[in-house]
Amino acid sequence: MRASQFHISTLKEAPAEAEIASHQLMTRAGMIRKLAGGIYNYMPLGLRVIRKVEGIIRDEMQRAGALELLMPLVQPAELWQETGRWELYGPELLRIKDRHGRDFVLQPTSEEVITDIARNEIHSWRQLPKNFFHIQTKFRDERRPRFGVMRGREFTMKDAYSFDRDEASAQKSYDVMYSAYMRIFERMGLTFRAVAADTGSIGGSRSHEFQVIADTGEDLLVYNPDTQYAANIELAEAPCLIAERAAAAQPLTKVSTPGAGKCDAVAEMLKLPLSQQVKTLAIAVEPETAGQPVEIWALLLRADHDLNEIKAGKIEGLKRGFRFATDDEIVAHFGCRPGFIGPIGTAKPVRTIVDRTVANMNDFVCGANEADFHYTGANWGRDLPEPTLVADLRNVVAGDPSPDGNGSLAIQRGIEVGHVFYLGTKYSSALKATYLDETGKPALLEMGCYGIGVTRLLGAAIEQNHDAKGIMWPRALAPFEVVICPVGWGKSEAVRDEATRLYEQLQAQGVDVLLDDRDERPGVMFADWELIGVPVRVTVGDRSLKDGVIELQGRRDSASAKVEVARGLEETLAKLAAAV
Amino acid sequence: MRASQFHISTLKEAPAEAEIASHQLMTRAGMIRKLAGGIYNYMPLGLRVIRKVEGIIRDEMQRAGALELLMPLVQPAELWQETGRWELYGPELLRIKDRHGRDFVLQPTSEEVITDIARNEIHSWRQLPKNFFHIQTKFRDERRPRFGVMRGREFTMKDAYSFDRDEASAQKSYDVMYSAYMRIFERMGLTFRAVAADTGSIGGSRSHEFQVIADTGEDLLVYNPDTQYAANIELAEAPCLIAERAAAAQPLTKVSTPGAGKCDAVAEMLKLPLSQQVKTLAIAVEPETAGQPVEIWALLLRADHDLNEIKAGKIEGLKRGFRFATDDEIVAHFGCRPGFIGPIGTAKPVRTIVDRTVANMNDFVCGANEADFHYTGANWGRDLPEPTLVADLRNVVAGDPSPDGNGSLAIQRGIEVGHVFYLGTKYSSALKATYLDETGKPALLEMGCYGIGVTRLLGAAIEQNHDAKGIMWPRALAPFEVVICPVGWGKSEAVRDEATRLYEQLQAQGVDVLLDDRDERPGVMFADWELIGVPVRVTVGDRSLKDGVIELQGRRDSASAKVEVARGLEETLAKLAAAV
Repeated sequence: MRASQFHISTLKEAPAEAEIASHQLMTRAGMIRKLAGGIYNYMPLGLRVIRKVEGIIRDEMQRAGALELLMPLVQPAELWQETGRWELYGPELLRIKDRHGRDFVLQPTSEEVITDIARNEIHSWRQLPKNFFHIQTKFRDERRPRFGVMRGREFTMKDAYSFDRDEASAQKSYDVMYSAYMRIFERMGLTFRAVAADTGSIGGSRSHEFQVIADTGEDLLVYNPDTQYAANIELAEAPCLIAERAAAAQPLTKVSTPGAGKCDAVAEMLKLPLSQQVKTLAIAVEPETAGQPVEIWALLLRADHDLNEIKAGKIEGLKRGFRFATDDEIVAHFGCRPGFIGPIGTAKPVRTIVDRTVANMNDFVCGANEADFHYTGANWGRDLPEPTLVADLRNVVAGDPSPDGNGSLAIQRGIEVGHVFYLGTKYSSALKATYLDETGKPALLEMGCYGIGVTRLLGAAIEQNHDAKGIMWPRALAPFEVVICPVGWGKSEAVRDEATRLYEQLQAQGVDVLLDDRDERPGVMFADWELIGVPVRVTVGDRSLKDGVIELQGRRDSASAKVEVARGLEETLAKLAAAV
Repeated sequence: MRASQFHISTLKEAPAEAEIASHQLMTRAGMIRKLAGGIYNYMPLGLRVIRKVEGIIRDEMQRAGALELLMPLVQPAELWQETGRWELYGPELLRIKDRHGRDFVLQPTSEEVITDIARNEIHSWRQLPKNFFHIQTKFRDERRPRFGVMRGREFTMKDAYSFDRDEASAQKSYDVMYSAYMRIFERMGLTFRAVAADTGSIGGSRSHEFQVIADTGEDLLVYNPDTQYAANIELAEAPCLIAERAAAAQPLTKVSTPGAGKCDAVAEMLKLPLSQQVKTLAIAVEPETAGQPVEIWALLLRADHDLNEIKAGKIEGLKRGFRFATDDEIVAHFGCRPGFIGPIGTAKPVRTIVDRTVANMNDFVCGANEADFHYTGANWGRDLPEPTLVADLRNVVAGDPSPDGNGSLAIQRGIEVGHVFYLGTKYSSALKATYLDETGKPALLEMGCYGIGVTRLLGAAIEQNHDAKGIMWPRALAPFEVVICPVGWGKSEAVRDEATRLYEQLQAQGVDVLLDDRDERPGVMFADWELIGVPVRVTVGDRSLKDGVIELQGRRDSASAKVEVARGLEETLAKLAAAV
């Protein structure tokens, strides 16, 4: 491609609303242009990267035996009503009506439709296993779309769905997809981590996320640097940090903590570490039938630990969902305003869930259910009943012992770009998708689903691969692999000849090369291509040609190297081969 | 691909609603499955064809210098309001609201968005010409979707948009696209015709349709078999068939035609040919401002000719649109019920448009504005005033003299699969899309737009290429180019070996080959692949292997040929090379 025949449209400034590097850089490089909130035009430069992402995904999916099809964006409400997701989904499911007033959705995912296809198309165990995928536009009507393509409303996703005769076979299909995903992200040249994950609203019982490592990631990944253990913090098991509870050594004492409604203030006032303090979180569960009272629960965590709401949501009684209690509810149940509540002497009986670590603490500090007062020296069994409900309630922190028994955990940030789920029969039972087994009896199809955020991958790759000058594309995703910058294109025939010769040589080798024939000054060209992030740059200038050399610069290199003109092709290919 | 790893799902019966061959065959072959009215799942077999169509289009668009981008499906109403199409478009434009109540459309076409991109991205004449295209899902909420993918609601289209500095350059861009389209449809192996076409609601002043020739086509194409002249019947100029008007020879006579309210009945009753009779069509034009009366006009055509509503709609006064008059309106203006109205002696004055041929008729028959009566011997200037408004009002009929002055016209049916338009500044002026010319002055961008119906092409190709057994894909579009049918796969090692060997040899040659390893009976395999329409079938059977031969059958051949096993690869490749 010649620059004069392409559309290069770089900007000096990013839009004010672009909060993160990838959004800023994709806009500045001219990859995307905003059309509406969370809805972007993919310009030719951006689409080139999308096509490379799609190409790798398609290739590996097919290698893994998956069959590509295409399910529509506009899907009839009936199927979503059959699975109940018509009601369950929030307003991010865009519900629309056609001219006849019939209900449809713009699909954010296609479990319903693929299961409908399966129940019509799969009749016999002989047809199994099957894995269907499509790469299709999705719509999620995010309340507050942001971060550019990272949380857009219209985006492209690859979603695959496997169908198997039994769980063992479904687990095999899952493993095949897991391996395909590993290859996909490896081929893209990304640093990533597969982590065990919560199955959330998609349902199912086994799940891994594929996370691109980036400091700006929204997800916290917990891993053991010495073993295979890795999990999303939502799921990562937090052990009890106290092997055995020590005997009570202090008397229960009510101490004045005026104005100290936060754990930090209490710790400072009492000169006791946070790890000696228990915090009480009051949560509320709405009644199942209207008119019944709201239930108030207390969750007890060590003061230096954070509540993990996903884990709490798995406790019997909280699975329907919960919220934090209001001030009025707290006063009514604890007899005290927030900041000083605790498990000892509540105004009304409160169901209490105790974190594993808290259950083994002794001589701890907690709120006294009296404004401006805390207890010190609180002890289980003596000052309050032995805990009956003990659970893992907290987020892992770095340094926690690893759940696999070896060493300790580290934490890093990641951006979720892929997700694999074992679904079981959640959708096949809702839609009655059965096949006839070897004995001729109908059985429910076992399913898995497997997503990759195609457009989101662009943002994630950039978050991981950029510097102050711009993007640093891994070779496999770069819109162009090599750019040739002729200095003095308009003036020097020697420059034009040599640049064109190398351009044609690289093209003949199948290299995705761009010749910058815009006749711009070197500073403009270099700034554009550093911003756009092409892995290898070749500069062909009159002066260096007289010395018989051209200049090679890797996007991640600190300096350029001069190479003999005669070795230009060879050296460029070597540079490219060495690129990430 | 091996059949056991693919999803083959043929049906004996087509759904009752499938009215045309392509809809029936695409369903029976397992290419599409209906999800909702006019909304289809593209199954793996169908998607393979779509990808081939897209591949050819993308390749030729890029060769023609067009740049691919991707504009969203969900587009903000504001842009459509800026061009006025928000109001102009009927209910086929699906208008939706997001969760915040903001208006959007599901795009049926992207003139608004691309012009918005151009006004932001194109600043200088130096950036011109530019041609952007995308291959994207479209949505048109058809009132009555039918004919499968031919008139669906969700479908895929390639739409391209050119931007130029002036009309001369825009015409060049148009010609480049015209040539690219010729190559595209040639490469697809389709019999097609480019015809001059009406520009319709897209606007602009020059337009060609690319029509796949098929007896089931909805469009009538007019062409001169001896010259380059070709036009859609909507546009094709109908000449006056009478060079000079003969003098009146008969007196005006009112004759009784009891019950003869149709032209045919009148002709039979009076023993006069239809070509001697004039029919009067009463049409109504709604007033521009409410409260004003409806205008009633009369259109006069020879009784054997058909009204061309597109042509009538271009007449001053009818451009706003018109409808046929109601019986009450006819009675009020002509003083007579429908069937017997005519231009002589109407109850109220009626504006009359006379077709070119009618203007030169003499001694003609027409309604007498009295129930059960007609006039014979009617003559212009004597019995009614000389016509003042003469226009081309009718459809061409086969045998009409060609407008280019050579020979006569023929008519055939076609299916529109592509359309190129010169738009001028219709959209750039509405959206104020300007560039700075060489003198630094802003000037409006000259535009063209160029569409190809990707999914529709599948239907059109099948309408043109099928027989009683099924589809006959042109090689370039076939989901597989060659299918190998081993007879006795499960039983004979020799068959398995030879079939697999040929399969691997063909794969190594880059042939898109399927090995039918389902171990089905020959009848089942042959029926499936004749239905699916693979161009070349190779049968490998135990008995013929013993004779050292395999069987080759072209999908369009009446008989198969035996070829030596040793020449299997060579002969299969030759057969494939000879396929359409």
